[in-house]
Amino acid sequence: MPLDATFSALADSTRRGVLEQLVISDASISDLAERFDMTLTGMKKHIDVLERAGLVATHKQGRVRTCTLGNLGLQDEADWIARHRQLWAARFAALDLIVEELKHRENSNVRNPA
Amino acid sequence: MPLDATFSALADSTRRGVLEQLVISDASISDLAERFDMTLTGMKKHIDVLERAGLVATHKQGRVRTCTLGNLGLQDEADWIARHRQLWAARFAALDLIVEELKHRENSNVRNPA
Repeated sequence: MPLDATFSALADSTRRGVLEQLVISDASISDLAERFDMTLTGMKKHIDVLERAGLVATHKQGRVRTCTLGNLGLQDEADWIARHRQLWAARFAALDLIVEELKHRENSNVRNPA
Repeated sequence: MPLDATFSALADSTRRGVLEQLVISDASISDLAERFDMTLTGMKKHIDVLERAGLVATHKQGRVRTCTLGNLGLQDEADWIARHRQLWAARFAALDLIVEELKHRENSNVRNPA
């Protein structure tokens, strides 16, 4: 499931930080390890997760592996969240209407007791 | 980190399905287990993850635990993704300008060789 991989990749503050950094400029894994105060091995694991999710692409030249943003634009993730929020808001609006209706009936009953 | 917990909770198709279901109506854990063809224990684990992330709230009446949508409206998650996509688009637009500029210079050089 692509959404599983991307949401999972986004569920870590270092990985989100790496994406924020790569928006500014490409960077080698060792640059990123230094900037985020991590070991090379630790950063490599994060980059692997991001690469498997399609959020980062890497290419190797000699001994240096450079990271760039992947092609994935997070469109589906943005869409899922937006659709969910919309349905959620609609449901709360519907509940509000029911509460209003109940209040209205209660007031009528107080004014006109059976 | 709240974003860690929410993105992690969203990184599973069953948990996203549960949220989609709860948008329509509240449901007990056993209803949800049946609908998603899972054991009660398996569904309980998913609900725990969603509840810790604030995406679901539960209340127990007698032996039945009912699940409702939590208060969290995924605003921060939507904002993070939107900001990232905006910066990303801006960076690609900047790269396009550079490529255009390089093409333009190359054409000038062909017409007016040094």
